Amino acid sequence: MKPEHKDIMKARKRNIRLTVAYDGTNYNGFQRQNPPAVAVQNILEDRLQKVFGDTVELAASGRTDAGVHARGQVVNFFTDGSIPVDRVPRAVNSILPPDIVVLEAAEADREFSARHSAVSKIYKYRILQGDIPDPFERNYSWNIRKELDVESMRACLELIKGEHDFSAFRAAGGPPVSPVRNIYEAALEVQQGGRIVELTFHANGFLYHMVRNIVGTLGNVGLGWKSVGDFKRIMDSLDRSQAGATAPAQGLFLDKVFYSKI
Amino acid sequence: MKPEHKDIMKARKRNIRLTVAYDGTNYNGFQRQNPPAVAVQNILEDRLQKVFGDTVELAASGRTDAGVHARGQVVNFFTDGSIPVDRVPRAVNSILPPDIVVLEAAEADREFSARHSAVSKIYKYRILQGDIPDPFERNYSWNIRKELDVESMRACLELIKGEHDFSAFRAAGGPPVSPVRNIYEAALEVQQGGRIVELTFHANGFLYHMVRNIVGTLGNVGLGWKSVGDFKRIMDSLDRSQAGATAPAQGLFLDKVFYSKI
Repeated sequence: MKPEHKDIMKARKRNIRLTVAYDGTNYNGFQRQNPPAVAVQNILEDRLQKVFGDTVELAASGRTDAGVHARGQVVNFFTDGSIPVDRVPRAVNSILPPDIVVLEAAEADREFSARHSAVSKIYKYRILQGDIPDPFERNYSWNIRKELDVESMRACLELIKGEHDFSAFRAAGGPPVSPVRNIYEAALEVQQGGRIVELTFHANGFLYHMVRNIVGTLGNVGLGWKSVGDFKRIMDSLDRSQAGATAPAQGLFLDKVFYSKI
Repeated sequence: MKPEHKDIMKARKRNIRLTVAYDGTNYNGFQRQNPPAVAVQNILEDRLQKVFGDTVELAASGRTDAGVHARGQVVNFFTDGSIPVDRVPRAVNSILPPDIVVLEAAEADREFSARHSAVSKIYKYRILQGDIPDPFERNYSWNIRKELDVESMRACLELIKGEHDFSAFRAAGGPPVSPVRNIYEAALEVQQGGRIVELTFHANGFLYHMVRNIVGTLGNVGLGWKSVGDFKRIMDSLDRSQAGATAPAQGLFLDKVFYSKI
């Protein structure tokens, strides 16, 4: 019987874990695409193959959509390549385009999976408020052209903390998983002299487009188009059609992925 | 006798002053270029003409080179257009590409010249230190791959404060002006948990490439390749060939231009 592909991969000697940052502006998301589309994964696998000498198939903590950024995406792969881990970042970065950077490399336990071992993640979302845009923020924030009511937005963030059914903020087309997630932390920080509103979400997992759908509705609250009470009713309705539009991709950052000790 | 072109311009009713920010990454500098090269000025003049209805010829506080950015470039132009100034930023920004933004517009005295009325300018220069690059800083900093000796760099900044002949930091090919400039402030700030070294230079004027040549030599001091004493000897030599290489354009920001009251 022919061995399964994943078993061939698992027969390799080493399991390498990488922490990766990328500017998603110029990519069709993280997940590998067929040419001519180019995803971060296509570029990373190609350069890692050059450094490790065998075919590289990455598993990632999760996908990010086109235009979404990462400061701490985590991936792993099995290899028989012999380069010591402490030389990996420099070797790979020297041949990566400058909008993708390997921050750290480590030997992982054989059982470690960047996807399945993840226990929680932090996403950040940046809003630029006010009617004057900022050329340096154009790819890294959602420009809402008015001053936002940040106190009402903070009140909404209190409502989403804890374990809830987030069906109202779940995009159609995601995988058929439970809509219940536990949000450990949801915070709003005003930065850069009041121009940037940075939202932080730490949860045990996120549904497809969940952060961007929450932020879209939060934006409506910040603009005064919806109240905190409306936000609560939308959330409790479990009905995606009640919520606001999906906030644009370029404001979203996958900030950090946490793993259990295995 | 045919009136001179500049007199035709000056015969127009209004003198408009704009403060402009731009990400210089995708432009061949500020100053108008012949196609297919595209400078910030080409784009700005084109869009201002659409909003004001007559031919616009900008005067700027100064040029910036390809890849150099601005947070507070100042320009002025004469026009017979009738749009009120408070509507100008929104009208122009709605048709500008997102990497060029008009921050402010004001009616100026007829004698105001963005170039000739300027009394001082602030430039900032950002260095990313350490051997791991940052995808979000690739167009906005010079990545020096080692930890820098910032105290020695600060000692050099003390030496350049005040009125000096900056011939050692003057590029060939600049206009034949006096090499004496007065640096009011030269400061170094460590930011973002130690990764960014931001340099600030406030002077009554800058020679061509002066900031980038100073920073190139400062980088050598930060790396330990040259001492503070070497820096002083280079400065006193008045000899460009003694100084370090010109620091890359993408770390430089024209931050602010100051004007006298006229």
